[in-house]
Amino acid sequence: MNIGDTNKDRTPTLADVARFAGVSTATVSRCLNSPDRVIEETRNKVLKAVRELGYAPNFNARALAAKRTNTIGAIIPTMENAIFARGLQAFQEELGRNGTTLLVASSSYQTDLEEEQIRTLVSRGADGLLLIGYRRDPKVYEFLHRQGVPVVAAWVFDPDADVPTVGFDNFLAMKMLAEKVISLGHRRIATITAATQGNDRASERLRGILAAMTEAGIPENDLSIIETTYGIDEGGVALEKLMTQQIRPSVVMCGNDVLAVGAIAKAKELGLNVPADLSVTGFDDIEIAKISSPPLTTVHVPHRRMGKEAARALLNMVGTTGGRTKILLETTLQIRESLAQHTD
Amino acid sequence: MNIGDTNKDRTPTLADVARFAGVSTATVSRCLNSPDRVIEETRNKVLKAVRELGYAPNFNARALAAKRTNTIGAIIPTMENAIFARGLQAFQEELGRNGTTLLVASSSYQTDLEEEQIRTLVSRGADGLLLIGYRRDPKVYEFLHRQGVPVVAAWVFDPDADVPTVGFDNFLAMKMLAEKVISLGHRRIATITAATQGNDRASERLRGILAAMTEAGIPENDLSIIETTYGIDEGGVALEKLMTQQIRPSVVMCGNDVLAVGAIAKAKELGLNVPADLSVTGFDDIEIAKISSPPLTTVHVPHRRMGKEAARALLNMVGTTGGRTKILLETTLQIRESLAQHTD
Repeated sequence: MNIGDTNKDRTPTLADVARFAGVSTATVSRCLNSPDRVIEETRNKVLKAVRELGYAPNFNARALAAKRTNTIGAIIPTMENAIFARGLQAFQEELGRNGTTLLVASSSYQTDLEEEQIRTLVSRGADGLLLIGYRRDPKVYEFLHRQGVPVVAAWVFDPDADVPTVGFDNFLAMKMLAEKVISLGHRRIATITAATQGNDRASERLRGILAAMTEAGIPENDLSIIETTYGIDEGGVALEKLMTQQIRPSVVMCGNDVLAVGAIAKAKELGLNVPADLSVTGFDDIEIAKISSPPLTTVHVPHRRMGKEAARALLNMVGTTGGRTKILLETTLQIRESLAQHTD
Repeated sequence: MNIGDTNKDRTPTLADVARFAGVSTATVSRCLNSPDRVIEETRNKVLKAVRELGYAPNFNARALAAKRTNTIGAIIPTMENAIFARGLQAFQEELGRNGTTLLVASSSYQTDLEEEQIRTLVSRGADGLLLIGYRRDPKVYEFLHRQGVPVVAAWVFDPDADVPTVGFDNFLAMKMLAEKVISLGHRRIATITAATQGNDRASERLRGILAAMTEAGIPENDLSIIETTYGIDEGGVALEKLMTQQIRPSVVMCGNDVLAVGAIAKAKELGLNVPADLSVTGFDDIEIAKISSPPLTTVHVPHRRMGKEAARALLNMVGTTGGRTKILLETTLQIRESLAQHTD
C-alpha cells in the first residue's frame, strides 16, 4: 500500500507515518520514545508526517516534539456536588494559561477506583496528577514515582508528606469553628460527616471537633456521629436520625455545606426553627451556603487560590525531579444566621 | 545497556520492551499498531514484556491486546455546578460495569476549548466520546469520523443529527412549562438564560417560551431576555437588572435551576415575596430545586437514565462502525411553590 490509496477514513498508523516520512518504523518509534536519540532533521520529518496524516490515536505532535503531552490529570472524589468544582475550575484555568489540558476522573470516594484511574491517566500519558488528600496506599506514590509522573495532593496540608501538598489545615479549621460553637453555649453537639476511613479531610475535621470539646471539658463520648455520603438528601436523612435520639443535639456540625443545607431543609420539614431550636454549621463556603435559608455558618476555604497554587506547583514539577512545595492556605470562619447562642 | 542495569526509577521505553521480549522495536511497534499482523506467540511475548516492565506511558497492556484502551472521554460545558453531575455519574457507573474508565474535560462553554479537548482525548486514545448538545462545527464530527472515534451527543434529541443523540426535547419541555405559566395568568414574562449562541439546549428552551407566548397571543417582543453564565450569583445579578426595568415581570423563567435559585435569593433580598410578588421557574430538577425556599417549579429531566442510555449507546458503538441510536427521553413538569397564579 502506498500513500495514494490511503483510505481517508482510516486511522493513520505508525507505519503510515514511517512511509510518509521516508524512514523506518523503528525510527518513528525512537522519535516517540527517545526523541533525544534522533537527529533534528529526522525528528522534523517525522513530526511533519505526523501533522500531515493527522496521526493521533496515542501520541500527538506536541508530545513527539517535547516528549510531553501537555495533559494533566486530576482525580476528585465526586462531581455530584460543587465542593471541588471551584478549586478545580481555577486549577484548569491556570493550566490553560500554560497550554495544558486537564482531564478529570471521579472516584466516588472509592480507593480501588481511584487506583484504576491513576493507572489509566498514567497510561494515557498524563504529565502530572492532582489528587485530593494525601493519605493513601504508599504503593500508589511509589508507582507514580517509578513512572516519573509528578503528583500534588491538594485540599490538605501535610508537612510530613512525601509529595507536595497544597491546602489547608482541616483539623485546625474545624477546631476553630467548634470552639466558636462551644463559646455560644452549645454542649450537646452532633456531627454529620463523610466516612472517615480513607478520607484524611473528613477524619481531620472530626478530630478538630473532638479536640475543641476536650479542651472545653466536654466528654468526647458526648459527640453524636453519623457517617454518610455527601449529598443534600443524605444530610436530611442523617438529621432525621439525630433528631429521633433520646438526647437531641442543640447544634449539628456538618462535614460540608452540602450536608448542612440538606440538614437545614429537613429540620424545617420537621417543624424545627433554625437556629432557634437547632443550630447547623457547614464547611467549604460554597455558593449554596450564602443562599441557604437561613444563611449558613461555615468555614471559608480559599478554593480558587488553592486550585491555582496546585496548578503552579504541578507545572513546575513536570519535567523535573522531586519538588517539595508545601503551601498552607488560611481558612476563615464565616458566621451567618444558622448558628445562634444556645439558650435552654 | 541490558536489563540488569535498568534503573528502577526510569520509565521503561519501547526499546526496553523489545529487548525484554527478544524482538525488534519494529515488531513491538507492529504489535501496538496492527496486532492482527503479528502472530499470537510473538504478541504474547510482547504483552508479557509490557506487563513485566510496567510499560505504560502511552499504551497499556489491555490496549495492546485488544487495540482498545477501555477509556471513554466526556466533555461537559461546566463542572462549576451540579447540572451535569448526576447524568455524568450514571454515565460513569454504566461504563464502570463494563470495565471502562471515564475521563472528563470541562469546556467552560467555549467552542475552541472544547475542540482542543476533543483532540486531546482522541490523542490520548479514548475509545469513544460523549459530547453535550449536538450543534457544533461539522469539522469536529468529520475529524472524529476520520479518527474512527464514535461519539454520542446527549442532553439533546435531534432526529436529523449525523451522530446518535440521547436526550430530551428542550424546546417542547420549556414550551410546556411556559404554557403552564401563561395559564396561570402571567403575561409579563422574563427569562434568564445562558448565551444561546452555540448552545442548542439554551436556544431551544428560549424558542419554547417564545412559541408558547405566540400561541397565547402575547407578542414575542414582550419577553425580557437576559443572557448570563450559569451560576447562583449570576442569577441574582440578572434578577436585579430585570427588577429595575420600567415594566417589571410577574414571572422569571430561568434556563436552569442554578440561575433560578440565585434569582429567588436575590428577590428575597430585594424585599419581594416569592411567589406572591414574583414567580420564578427553573429547569433540570436537581437537588437544590427541592430545598429552595420556596421550593422551585421546574422541568424534571431524567438525568440518571440519560447518562445510562448514553453509556450503553456509546459502548455499543466502540469497535463498530456507524450506529444510529436516537433516544428521546420524557421530561415532566415539577410544580412547586415558586410558581403561583398571577393576580393584579
